[in-house]
Amino acid sequence: METVSKNRCFGGVQGVYTHHSDACACPMTFGLFLPEEAEQGPVPLLWYLSGLTCTHENAMVKAGAQGWAAEHGIALCFPDTSPRGEDVADDPAYDLGHGAGFYVNATESPWSAHYRMWDYVTEELPSIVTANFAIDEERQAVTGHSMGGHGALTMAMSLPGRFRSASAFAPICAPTQSEWGIKQFTAYLGADKAAWARHDATALMEARGFDGPILIDTGTDDQFGDFLSTEVLAAAMAKRRQEGAIRLQKGYDHSYFFVASFMEEHVAFHAEALWA
Amino acid sequence: METVSKNRCFGGVQGVYTHHSDACACPMTFGLFLPEEAEQGPVPLLWYLSGLTCTHENAMVKAGAQGWAAEHGIALCFPDTSPRGEDVADDPAYDLGHGAGFYVNATESPWSAHYRMWDYVTEELPSIVTANFAIDEERQAVTGHSMGGHGALTMAMSLPGRFRSASAFAPICAPTQSEWGIKQFTAYLGADKAAWARHDATALMEARGFDGPILIDTGTDDQFGDFLSTEVLAAAMAKRRQEGAIRLQKGYDHSYFFVASFMEEHVAFHAEALWA
Repeated sequence: METVSKNRCFGGVQGVYTHHSDACACPMTFGLFLPEEAEQGPVPLLWYLSGLTCTHENAMVKAGAQGWAAEHGIALCFPDTSPRGEDVADDPAYDLGHGAGFYVNATESPWSAHYRMWDYVTEELPSIVTANFAIDEERQAVTGHSMGGHGALTMAMSLPGRFRSASAFAPICAPTQSEWGIKQFTAYLGADKAAWARHDATALMEARGFDGPILIDTGTDDQFGDFLSTEVLAAAMAKRRQEGAIRLQKGYDHSYFFVASFMEEHVAFHAEALWA
Repeated sequence: METVSKNRCFGGVQGVYTHHSDACACPMTFGLFLPEEAEQGPVPLLWYLSGLTCTHENAMVKAGAQGWAAEHGIALCFPDTSPRGEDVADDPAYDLGHGAGFYVNATESPWSAHYRMWDYVTEELPSIVTANFAIDEERQAVTGHSMGGHGALTMAMSLPGRFRSASAFAPICAPTQSEWGIKQFTAYLGADKAAWARHDATALMEARGFDGPILIDTGTDDQFGDFLSTEVLAAAMAKRRQEGAIRLQKGYDHSYFFVASFMEEHVAFHAEALWA
Protein backbone atom coordinates (compact mmCIF):
# COMPACT_ATOMS: atom_id res chain seq x y z
CA MET A 1 0.00 0.00 0.00
CA GLU A 2 1.31 3.44 -0.94
CA THR A 3 0.27 6.83 0.40
CA VAL A 4 -0.85 9.20 -2.36
CA SER A 5 -1.63 12.15 -0.11
CA LYS A 6 -2.39 13.10 3.48
CA ASN A 7 -4.10 16.33 4.50
CA ARG A 8 -4.94 17.54 7.97
CA CYS A 9 -8.73 17.84 8.06
CA PHE A 10 -11.02 18.69 10.98
CA GLY A 11 -8.32 17.72 13.46
CA GLY A 12 -7.81 14.33 11.79
CA VAL A 13 -6.20 13.14 8.57
CA GLN A 14 -7.74 12.70 5.12
CA GLY A 15 -5.52 10.21 3.33
CA VAL A 16 -5.54 8.69 -0.14
CA TYR A 17 -3.89 5.31 -0.67
CA THR A 18 -3.22 2.93 -3.56
CA HIS A 19 -2.59 -0.79 -3.48
CA HIS A 20 -2.60 -3.79 -5.76
CA SER A 21 -5.99 -5.47 -5.64
CA ASP A 22 -6.11 -9.23 -5.95
CA ALA A 23 -9.89 -9.10 -6.38
CA CYS A 24 -9.78 -6.61 -9.25
CA ALA A 25 -6.36 -7.63 -10.61
CA CYS A 26 -5.27 -4.01 -10.94
CA PRO A 27 -4.17 -1.11 -8.74
CA MET A 28 -6.99 0.45 -6.71
CA THR A 29 -7.21 3.77 -4.89
CA PHE A 30 -9.26 4.67 -1.83
CA GLY A 31 -9.71 7.59 0.54
CA LEU A 32 -9.71 7.19 4.32
CA PHE A 33 -10.51 9.85 6.89
CA LEU A 34 -9.27 9.18 10.41
CA PRO A 35 -10.51 11.42 13.22
CA GLU A 36 -8.11 12.70 15.85
CA GLU A 37 -9.23 9.92 18.23
CA ALA A 38 -7.58 7.32 15.98
CA GLU A 39 -4.22 8.48 17.35
CA GLN A 40 -5.27 6.95 20.69
CA GLY A 41 -6.80 3.69 19.48
CA PRO A 42 -9.30 2.01 17.15
CA VAL A 43 -12.34 4.03 16.05
CA PRO A 44 -15.62 3.01 14.36
CA LEU A 45 -15.76 3.07 10.55
CA LEU A 46 -18.46 4.34 8.20
CA TRP A 47 -18.13 3.16 4.60
CA TYR A 48 -19.26 5.55 1.86
CA LEU A 49 -19.90 3.96 -1.54
CA SER A 50 -20.07 6.39 -4.45
CA GLY A 51 -22.25 6.56 -7.52
CA LEU A 52 -21.88 6.30 -11.28
CA THR A 53 -18.89 8.15 -12.81
CA CYS A 54 -17.35 8.80 -9.40
CA THR A 55 -13.91 7.85 -8.16
CA HIS A 56 -12.83 7.65 -4.52
CA GLU A 57 -12.47 11.42 -4.65
CA ASN A 58 -15.93 12.88 -5.27
CA ALA A 59 -17.49 12.27 -1.89
CA MET A 60 -14.18 12.93 -0.17
CA VAL A 61 -14.17 16.52 -1.43
CA LYS A 62 -17.88 17.28 -1.97
CA ALA A 63 -20.02 15.49 0.63
CA GLY A 64 -18.89 17.46 3.68
CA ALA A 65 -18.73 14.27 5.74
CA GLN A 66 -15.42 14.70 7.53
CA GLY A 67 -16.56 17.46 9.87
CA TRP A 68 -19.43 15.38 11.18
CA ALA A 69 -17.30 12.23 11.35
CA ALA A 70 -14.74 14.19 13.39
CA GLU A 71 -17.47 15.39 15.74
CA HIS A 72 -18.50 11.78 16.41
CA GLY A 73 -15.00 10.26 16.39
CA ILE A 74 -15.70 8.05 13.38
CA ALA A 75 -13.50 7.08 10.41
CA LEU A 76 -14.74 7.23 6.81
CA CYS A 77 -13.66 5.00 3.93
CA PHE A 78 -14.25 6.08 0.31
CA PRO A 79 -13.59 3.20 -2.15
CA ASP A 80 -13.43 3.67 -5.90
CA THR A 81 -16.46 2.56 -7.96
CA SER A 82 -14.74 0.19 -10.39
CA PRO A 83 -11.41 -1.26 -11.46
CA ARG A 84 -9.49 1.08 -13.75
CA GLY A 85 -6.57 1.14 -16.15
CA GLU A 86 -5.76 0.66 -19.81
CA ASP A 87 -6.01 -3.11 -19.44
CA VAL A 88 -9.44 -2.95 -17.80
CA ALA A 89 -12.46 -3.39 -20.11
CA ASP A 90 -14.50 -0.23 -20.56
CA ASP A 91 -17.52 1.05 -22.46
CA PRO A 92 -18.16 4.48 -23.98
CA ALA A 93 -21.36 4.86 -21.94
CA TYR A 94 -21.06 6.61 -18.56
CA ASP A 95 -23.06 3.84 -16.89
CA LEU A 96 -21.02 0.76 -17.85
CA GLY A 97 -17.36 -0.10 -17.31
CA HIS A 98 -15.04 2.37 -15.60
CA GLY A 99 -16.84 4.24 -12.83
CA ALA A 100 -19.81 1.86 -13.00
CA GLY A 101 -18.86 -1.34 -11.22
CA PHE A 102 -22.25 -1.68 -9.51
CA TYR A 103 -20.59 -3.53 -6.60
CA VAL A 104 -20.96 -6.98 -8.17
CA ASN A 105 -18.57 -9.75 -9.20
CA ALA A 106 -18.86 -9.93 -12.98
CA THR A 107 -19.10 -13.43 -14.41
CA GLU A 108 -19.34 -12.48 -18.08
CA SER A 109 -16.59 -11.68 -20.58
CA PRO A 110 -14.88 -9.22 -20.92
CA TRP A 111 -15.85 -7.89 -17.49
CA SER A 112 -15.04 -10.89 -15.32
CA ALA A 113 -11.28 -10.36 -15.57
CA HIS A 114 -11.33 -7.26 -13.33
CA TYR A 115 -14.86 -6.29 -12.28
CA ARG A 116 -15.02 -8.06 -8.91
CA MET A 117 -16.14 -5.07 -6.87
CA TRP A 118 -18.26 -7.16 -4.48
CA ASP A 119 -15.22 -9.09 -3.30
CA TYR A 120 -13.21 -5.87 -3.27
CA VAL A 121 -15.51 -3.81 -1.05
CA THR A 122 -16.75 -6.65 1.18
CA GLU A 123 -13.50 -8.58 1.71
CA GLU A 124 -10.25 -7.27 0.31
CA LEU A 125 -10.50 -3.58 1.15
CA PRO A 126 -11.89 -4.19 4.65
CA SER A 127 -8.90 -6.44 5.34
CA ILE A 128 -6.49 -3.79 4.12
CA VAL A 129 -8.14 -0.99 6.06
CA THR A 130 -8.37 -2.87 9.33
CA ALA A 131 -4.80 -4.20 9.00
CA ASN A 132 -3.26 -0.78 8.34
CA PHE A 133 -5.31 1.71 10.33
CA ALA A 134 -6.75 2.11 13.82
CA ILE A 135 -10.21 0.76 12.98
CA ASP A 136 -12.55 -1.08 15.35
CA GLU A 137 -13.91 -3.72 12.98
CA GLU A 138 -16.68 -4.57 15.43
CA ARG A 139 -18.13 -1.09 14.84
CA GLN A 140 -18.88 -0.64 11.16
CA ALA A 141 -21.71 1.05 9.26
CA VAL A 142 -22.35 1.68 5.58
CA THR A 143 -23.82 4.42 3.42
CA GLY A 144 -23.68 5.48 -0.22
CA HIS A 145 -25.13 7.60 -3.00
CA SER A 146 -27.13 6.40 -6.00
CA MET A 147 -25.27 3.29 -7.33
CA GLY A 148 -23.38 3.46 -4.03
CA GLY A 149 -26.68 3.50 -2.13
CA HIS A 150 -27.52 0.28 -3.94
CA GLY A 151 -24.15 -1.08 -2.89
CA ALA A 152 -24.62 0.01 0.72
CA LEU A 153 -28.08 -1.55 1.07
CA THR A 154 -27.16 -4.81 -0.64
CA MET A 155 -24.00 -5.15 1.45
CA ALA A 156 -25.87 -4.43 4.67
CA MET A 157 -28.48 -7.10 3.99
CA SER A 158 -26.08 -9.67 2.55
CA LEU A 159 -23.59 -9.57 5.43
CA PRO A 160 -25.63 -9.96 8.63
CA GLY A 161 -23.68 -8.85 11.68
CA ARG A 162 -21.17 -6.82 9.72
CA PHE A 163 -22.85 -3.42 9.88
CA ARG A 164 -24.72 -1.87 12.80
CA SER A 165 -26.62 0.59 10.60
CA ALA A 166 -27.15 1.31 6.91
CA SER A 167 -28.17 4.44 5.07
CA ALA A 168 -28.35 5.75 1.54
CA PHE A 169 -28.73 8.97 -0.43
CA ALA A 170 -30.97 8.56 -3.50
CA PRO A 171 -30.15 4.85 -3.82
CA ILE A 172 -30.95 2.67 -6.80
CA CYS A 173 -33.48 0.55 -4.95
CA ALA A 174 -34.39 -2.13 -7.48
CA PRO A 175 -31.77 -2.47 -10.23
CA THR A 176 -33.41 -5.61 -11.63
CA GLN A 177 -36.35 -3.37 -12.63
CA SER A 178 -34.46 -0.24 -13.70
CA GLU A 179 -32.53 1.22 -16.61
CA TRP A 180 -29.84 1.64 -13.96
CA GLY A 181 -29.41 -2.06 -13.40
CA ILE A 182 -30.87 -4.22 -16.17
CA LYS A 183 -28.23 -3.10 -18.66
CA GLN A 184 -25.36 -3.55 -16.22
CA PHE A 185 -26.52 -6.82 -14.69
CA THR A 186 -27.01 -8.24 -18.19
CA ALA A 187 -23.46 -7.24 -19.09
CA TYR A 188 -21.76 -8.21 -15.83
CA LEU A 189 -23.88 -11.14 -14.61
CA GLY A 190 -25.47 -12.54 -17.78
CA ALA A 191 -28.96 -13.93 -18.17
CA ASP A 192 -29.27 -15.73 -14.82
CA LYS A 193 -31.73 -13.62 -12.89
CA ALA A 194 -31.08 -15.51 -9.66
CA ALA A 195 -27.66 -13.85 -9.68
CA TRP A 196 -29.31 -10.49 -10.26
CA ALA A 197 -31.65 -10.85 -7.29
CA ARG A 198 -28.71 -11.21 -4.91
CA HIS A 199 -27.83 -7.62 -5.82
CA ASP A 200 -31.28 -6.06 -5.65
CA ALA A 201 -32.05 -4.18 -2.43
CA THR A 202 -35.79 -4.64 -2.81
CA ALA A 203 -35.47 -8.39 -3.41
CA LEU A 204 -33.18 -8.67 -0.39
CA MET A 205 -35.61 -6.64 1.72
CA GLU A 206 -38.43 -8.98 0.71
CA ALA A 207 -36.31 -12.06 1.42
CA ARG A 208 -34.51 -11.13 4.63
CA GLY A 209 -34.28 -7.44 5.57
CA PHE A 210 -31.54 -5.86 7.67
CA ASP A 211 -30.74 -6.54 11.31
CA GLY A 212 -30.35 -2.86 12.22
CA PRO A 213 -31.82 0.55 11.41
CA ILE A 214 -31.97 1.94 7.85
CA LEU A 215 -32.17 5.60 6.83
CA ILE A 216 -32.85 6.58 3.20
CA ASP A 217 -33.17 10.13 1.83
CA THR A 218 -34.20 10.86 -1.75
CA GLY A 219 -35.14 14.22 -3.29
CA THR A 220 -38.64 14.83 -4.63
CA ASP A 221 -37.03 16.60 -7.63
CA ASP A 222 -34.42 13.92 -8.32
CA GLN A 223 -33.83 14.09 -12.07
CA PHE A 224 -33.13 10.34 -12.07
CA GLY A 225 -36.08 9.51 -9.85
CA ASP A 226 -37.57 7.11 -12.40
CA PHE A 227 -34.39 5.01 -12.29
CA LEU A 228 -34.38 4.70 -8.50
CA SER A 229 -37.61 2.68 -7.93
CA THR A 230 -37.91 4.17 -4.44
CA GLU A 231 -41.54 3.09 -4.27
CA VAL A 232 -40.89 -0.63 -4.45
CA LEU A 233 -38.31 -0.55 -1.68
CA ALA A 234 -40.61 1.64 0.42
CA ALA A 235 -43.34 -0.97 0.02
CA ALA A 236 -40.99 -3.83 0.83
CA MET A 237 -39.67 -2.07 3.95
CA ALA A 238 -43.18 -1.37 5.18
CA LYS A 239 -44.36 -4.91 4.47
CA ARG A 240 -41.41 -6.39 6.38
CA ARG A 241 -41.81 -3.81 9.16
CA GLN A 242 -38.11 -3.10 8.76
CA GLU A 243 -36.77 -0.67 11.35
CA GLY A 244 -35.95 2.49 9.47
CA ALA A 245 -37.22 5.35 7.36
CA ILE A 246 -37.45 6.38 3.72
CA ARG A 247 -37.75 10.15 3.52
CA LEU A 248 -38.63 12.15 0.42
CA GLN A 249 -36.96 15.55 0.71
CA LYS A 250 -38.83 18.37 -0.93
CA GLY A 251 -37.09 20.13 -3.82
CA TYR A 252 -33.81 18.24 -3.68
CA ASP A 253 -32.21 16.65 -6.76
CA HIS A 254 -29.56 13.95 -7.29
CA SER A 255 -26.50 16.16 -6.79
CA TYR A 256 -23.89 16.37 -4.06
CA PHE A 257 -25.64 19.55 -2.89
CA PHE A 258 -28.39 17.17 -1.81
CA VAL A 259 -25.98 14.69 -0.25
CA ALA A 260 -24.16 17.41 1.69
CA SER A 261 -27.45 18.86 2.93
CA PHE A 262 -28.33 15.65 4.79
CA MET A 263 -24.87 14.37 5.69
CA GLU A 264 -25.04 15.69 9.25
CA GLU A 265 -28.16 13.63 9.94
CA HIS A 266 -26.78 10.48 8.32
CA VAL A 267 -23.52 10.60 10.25
CA ALA A 268 -25.43 11.24 13.49
CA PHE A 269 -27.72 8.29 12.67
CA HIS A 270 -24.74 5.99 12.23
CA ALA A 271 -22.93 7.41 15.26
CA GLU A 272 -25.86 6.47 17.47
CA ALA A 273 -25.63 2.86 16.31
CA LEU A 274 -21.84 2.71 16.26
CA TRP A 275 -21.41 4.03 19.79
CA ALA A 276 -24.34 2.10 21.29
CA MET B 1 -28.07 37.15 -16.88
CA GLU B 2 -28.72 33.47 -17.56
CA THR B 3 -29.23 30.67 -15.07
CA VAL B 4 -26.79 27.80 -15.61
CA SER B 5 -28.04 25.62 -12.77
CA LYS B 6 -30.02 25.70 -9.56
CA ASN B 7 -29.80 23.04 -6.87
CA ARG B 8 -31.68 22.82 -3.61
CA CYS B 9 -29.02 22.96 -0.89
CA PHE B 10 -29.45 23.10 2.90
CA GLY B 11 -32.98 24.40 2.52
CA GLY B 12 -31.89 27.17 0.16
CA VAL B 13 -30.72 27.33 -3.44
CA GLN B 14 -27.22 27.03 -4.87
CA GLY B 15 -27.37 28.76 -8.24
CA VAL B 16 -24.83 29.33 -11.02
CA TYR B 17 -25.33 32.26 -13.37
CA THR B 18 -23.59 33.75 -16.41
CA HIS B 19 -23.72 37.29 -17.71
CA HIS B 20 -21.86 39.60 -20.04
CA SER B 21 -19.31 41.59 -18.07
CA ASP B 22 -18.63 45.16 -19.17
CA ALA B 23 -15.62 45.31 -16.86
CA CYS B 24 -14.00 42.18 -18.27
CA ALA B 25 -15.45 42.45 -21.79
CA CYS B 26 -16.39 38.78 -21.83
CA PRO B 27 -18.98 36.43 -20.34
CA MET B 28 -18.46 35.75 -16.63
CA THR B 29 -19.89 33.03 -14.40
CA PHE B 30 -20.57 33.16 -10.67
CA GLY B 31 -22.16 30.98 -7.98
CA LEU B 32 -24.70 32.33 -5.49
CA PHE B 33 -26.12 30.49 -2.50
CA LEU B 34 -29.35 31.91 -1.10
CA PRO B 35 -30.59 30.60 2.25
CA GLU B 36 -34.25 29.78 2.73
CA GLU B 37 -34.77 33.17 4.43
CA ALA B 38 -34.17 34.95 1.10
CA GLU B 39 -37.66 33.82 0.06
CA GLN B 40 -39.03 36.25 2.67
CA GLY B 41 -36.75 39.23 2.07
CA PRO B 42 -33.18 40.52 1.74
CA VAL B 43 -30.43 38.63 3.56
CA PRO B 44 -26.79 39.49 4.37
CA LEU B 45 -24.11 38.50 1.86
CA LEU B 46 -20.69 36.94 2.41
CA TRP B 47 -18.35 37.15 -0.58
CA TYR B 48 -15.92 34.26 -1.10
CA LEU B 49 -12.98 35.00 -3.41
CA SER B 50 -11.12 31.95 -4.66
CA GLY B 51 -7.46 31.25 -5.25
CA LEU B 52 -5.14 30.50 -8.15
CA THR B 53 -6.45 28.02 -10.76
CA CYS B 54 -9.96 28.10 -9.31
CA THR B 55 -13.21 28.97 -11.04
CA HIS B 56 -16.46 29.97 -9.31
CA GLU B 57 -17.01 26.27 -8.70
CA ASN B 58 -14.20 25.07 -6.41
CA ALA B 59 -15.32 26.68 -3.18
CA MET B 60 -18.96 26.14 -4.09
CA VAL B 61 -18.47 22.36 -4.03
CA LYS B 62 -15.49 21.87 -1.71
CA ALA B 63 -15.53 24.47 1.09
CA GLY B 64 -18.63 23.24 2.91
CA ALA B 65 -19.82 26.81 3.41
CA GLN B 66 -23.50 26.51 2.51
CA GLY B 67 -24.54 24.56 5.58
CA TRP B 68 -23.13 27.20 7.92
CA ALA B 69 -24.49 30.05 5.79
CA ALA B 70 -27.91 28.41 5.94
CA GLU B 71 -27.66 28.13 9.70
CA HIS B 72 -27.00 31.87 9.97
CA GLY B 73 -29.37 32.98 7.19
CA ILE B 74 -26.59 34.41 5.03
CA ALA B 75 -26.07 34.37 1.25
CA LEU B 76 -22.73 33.43 -0.34
CA CYS B 77 -21.33 34.73 -3.63
CA PHE B 78 -18.56 32.84 -5.44
CA PRO B 79 -17.07 34.93 -8.30
CA ASP B 80 -14.67 33.52 -10.88
CA THR B 81 -10.97 34.37 -10.50
CA SER B 82 -10.32 35.85 -13.95
CA PRO B 83 -11.86 36.63 -17.31
CA ARG B 84 -11.92 33.59 -19.59
CA GLY B 85 -12.42 32.62 -23.22
CA GLU B 86 -10.45 32.08 -26.41
CA ASP B 87 -10.14 35.83 -26.93
CA VAL B 88 -8.80 36.44 -23.43
CA ALA B 89 -5.00 36.60 -23.08
CA ASP B 90 -3.51 33.67 -21.19
CA ASP B 91 -0.16 32.27 -20.13
CA PRO B 92 1.00 28.65 -19.86
CA ALA B 93 1.87 29.14 -16.18
CA TYR B 94 -0.81 28.27 -13.63
CA ASP B 95 -0.22 31.57 -11.83
CA LEU B 96 -0.74 34.07 -14.65
CA GLY B 97 -3.67 34.65 -16.99
CA HIS B 98 -6.76 32.47 -16.78
CA GLY B 99 -7.53 31.57 -13.18
CA ALA B 100 -5.04 34.12 -11.86
CA GLY B 101 -6.62 37.57 -12.10
CA PHE B 102 -5.28 38.66 -8.70
CA TYR B 103 -8.27 41.01 -8.28
CA VAL B 104 -6.58 43.97 -10.00
CA ASN B 105 -7.34 46.12 -13.05
CA ALA B 106 -4.54 45.34 -15.51
CA THR B 107 -3.04 48.37 -17.21
CA GLU B 108 -0.46 46.56 -19.32
CA SER B 109 -0.82 44.89 -22.70
CA PRO B 110 -2.08 42.26 -23.47
CA TRP B 111 -3.85 41.94 -20.12
CA SER B 112 -5.62 45.28 -19.94
CA ALA B 113 -8.23 44.33 -22.55
CA HIS B 114 -10.02 41.92 -20.18
CA TYR B 115 -8.28 41.64 -16.81
CA ARG B 116 -10.28 44.19 -14.84
CA MET B 117 -11.16 41.96 -11.92
CA TRP B 118 -11.04 44.78 -9.35
CA ASP B 119 -13.85 46.63 -11.10
CA TYR B 120 -15.65 43.34 -11.64
CA VAL B 121 -15.71 42.15 -8.02
CA THR B 122 -16.04 45.57 -6.36
CA GLU B 123 -18.57 47.22 -8.69
CA GLU B 124 -20.10 45.27 -11.53
CA LEU B 125 -20.86 41.96 -9.85
CA PRO B 126 -22.18 43.58 -6.64
CA SER B 127 -24.59 45.62 -8.79
CA ILE B 128 -25.77 42.51 -10.60
CA VAL B 129 -26.17 40.49 -7.44
CA THR B 130 -28.06 43.15 -5.50
CA ALA B 131 -30.29 43.95 -8.49
CA ASN B 132 -31.29 40.36 -9.15
CA PHE B 133 -31.42 38.68 -5.75
CA ALA B 134 -32.79 39.32 -2.26
CA ILE B 135 -29.56 40.76 -0.82
CA ASP B 136 -29.27 43.38 1.93
CA GLU B 137 -26.41 45.46 0.56
CA GLU B 138 -25.97 47.17 3.92
CA ARG B 139 -24.89 43.83 5.38
CA GLN B 140 -21.88 42.52 3.47
CA ALA B 141 -18.73 40.71 4.51
CA VAL B 142 -15.82 39.25 2.58
CA THR B 143 -13.55 36.22 2.80
CA GLY B 144 -11.31 34.26 0.46
CA HIS B 145 -8.57 31.67 0.09
CA SER B 146 -4.95 32.27 -0.91
CA MET B 147 -5.06 34.72 -3.89
CA GLY B 148 -8.69 35.24 -2.87
CA GLY B 149 -7.63 36.01 0.68
CA HIS B 150 -5.43 38.73 -0.80
CA GLY B 151 -8.47 39.96 -2.72
CA ALA B 152 -10.69 39.88 0.37
CA LEU B 153 -8.26 41.80 2.56
CA THR B 154 -7.44 44.43 -0.06
CA MET B 155 -11.11 44.96 -0.86
CA ALA B 156 -12.02 45.26 2.81
CA MET B 157 -9.39 47.93 3.45
CA SER B 158 -9.91 49.79 0.16
CA LEU B 159 -13.67 50.17 0.47
CA PRO B 160 -14.35 51.56 3.97
CA GLY B 161 -17.94 51.07 5.02
CA ARG B 162 -18.63 48.35 2.47
CA PHE B 163 -17.86 45.29 4.59
CA ARG B 164 -18.63 44.72 8.26
CA SER B 165 -16.02 42.00 8.66
CA ALA B 166 -13.20 40.43 6.68
CA SER B 167 -11.51 37.05 6.90
CA ALA B 168 -9.13 34.92 4.92
CA PHE B 169 -7.84 31.37 4.65
CA ALA B 170 -4.08 31.22 3.96
CA PRO B 171 -4.06 34.63 2.25
CA ILE B 172 -1.24 36.06 0.19
CA CYS B 173 -0.44 38.83 2.64
CA ALA B 174 2.21 40.86 0.83
CA PRO B 175 2.20 40.22 -2.93
CA THR B 176 4.66 43.05 -3.57
CA GLN B 177 7.25 40.96 -1.69
CA SER B 178 6.29 37.47 -2.90
CA GLU B 179 6.73 35.13 -5.84
CA TRP B 180 2.94 35.13 -5.76
CA GLY B 181 2.61 38.79 -6.61
CA ILE B 182 5.76 40.29 -8.07
CA LYS B 183 5.44 38.31 -11.29
CA GLN B 184 1.75 39.06 -11.68
CA PHE B 185 1.86 42.72 -10.67
CA THR B 186 4.74 43.26 -13.11
CA ALA B 187 2.68 41.71 -15.88
CA TYR B 188 -0.66 43.29 -15.05
CA LEU B 189 0.34 46.64 -13.52
CA GLY B 190 3.78 47.35 -14.97
CA ALA B 191 6.72 48.94 -13.21
CA ASP B 192 4.85 51.56 -11.15
CA LYS B 193 5.09 50.25 -7.60
CA ALA B 194 2.63 52.83 -6.30
CA ALA B 195 -0.01 50.88 -8.22
CA TRP B 196 1.26 47.66 -6.64
CA ALA B 197 0.96 49.02 -3.10
CA ARG B 198 -2.76 49.67 -3.55
CA HIS B 199 -3.13 45.87 -3.87
CA ASP B 200 -0.90 44.77 -1.02
CA ALA B 201 -2.73 43.87 2.20
CA THR B 202 0.29 44.60 4.37
CA ALA B 203 0.85 48.02 2.79
CA LEU B 204 -2.85 48.80 3.24
CA MET B 205 -2.72 47.64 6.86
CA GLU B 206 0.26 49.93 7.49
CA ALA B 207 -1.47 52.84 5.73
CA ARG B 208 -5.04 52.59 6.96
CA GLY B 209 -6.23 49.24 8.39
CA PHE B 210 -9.80 47.97 8.35
CA ASP B 211 -12.79 49.46 10.15
CA GLY B 212 -14.08 46.13 11.42
CA PRO B 213 -12.79 42.78 12.74
CA ILE B 214 -10.41 40.56 10.77
CA LEU B 215 -9.94 36.80 11.12
CA ILE B 216 -7.10 35.00 9.35
CA ASP B 217 -6.27 31.28 9.52
CA THR B 218 -3.16 29.79 7.94
CA GLY B 219 -1.76 26.28 8.36
CA THR B 220 1.62 25.68 9.98
CA ASP B 221 2.30 23.07 7.28
CA ASP B 222 1.17 25.21 4.33
CA GLN B 223 3.27 24.04 1.40
CA PHE B 224 3.14 27.57 -0.02
CA GLY B 225 3.86 29.25 3.30
CA ASP B 226 6.93 31.04 1.95
CA PHE B 227 4.75 32.76 -0.66
CA LEU B 228 2.20 34.03 1.86
CA SER B 229 4.34 36.44 3.95
CA THR B 230 2.05 35.92 6.91
CA GLU B 231 4.69 37.37 9.25
CA VAL B 232 4.71 40.85 7.72
CA LEU B 233 0.94 41.21 7.90
CA ALA B 234 0.97 39.88 11.45
CA ALA B 235 3.48 42.56 12.39
CA ALA B 236 1.51 45.29 10.61
CA MET B 237 -1.74 44.23 12.30
CA ALA B 238 -0.11 44.24 15.72
CA LYS B 239 1.57 47.59 15.14
CA ARG B 240 -1.71 49.20 14.08
CA ARG B 241 -3.58 47.46 16.90
CA GLN B 242 -6.05 46.28 14.28
CA GLU B 243 -9.05 44.46 15.76
CA GLY B 244 -8.66 40.86 14.70
CA ALA B 245 -6.62 37.69 14.84
CA ILE B 246 -4.08 35.81 12.79
CA ARG B 247 -4.11 32.16 13.80
CA LEU B 248 -1.55 29.55 12.78
CA GLN B 249 -3.31 26.18 12.71
CA LYS B 250 -1.11 23.22 13.55
CA GLY B 251 -0.58 20.65 10.83
CA TYR B 252 -2.88 22.15 8.19
CA ASP B 253 -1.79 22.75 4.60
CA HIS B 254 -3.06 24.94 1.75
CA SER B 255 -5.87 22.63 0.57
CA TYR B 256 -9.62 22.85 0.73
CA PHE B 257 -9.47 20.26 3.51
CA PHE B 258 -7.96 23.10 5.54
CA VAL B 259 -10.53 25.64 4.34
CA ALA B 260 -13.44 23.33 5.11
CA SER B 261 -12.05 22.58 8.57
CA PHE B 262 -12.36 26.22 9.65
CA MET B 263 -15.34 27.33 7.59
CA GLU B 264 -17.78 26.97 10.48
CA GLU B 265 -15.78 29.46 12.57
CA HIS B 266 -15.34 31.93 9.72
CA VAL B 267 -19.04 31.97 8.85
CA ALA B 268 -19.93 32.38 12.54
CA PHE B 269 -17.41 35.23 12.80
CA HIS B 270 -19.04 37.03 9.88
CA ALA B 271 -22.56 36.26 11.09
CA GLU B 272 -21.85 38.01 14.36
CA ALA B 273 -20.84 41.17 12.49
CA LEU B 274 -23.55 40.90 9.84
CA TRP B 275 -26.40 40.47 12.31
CA ALA B 276 -25.11 43.03 14.85
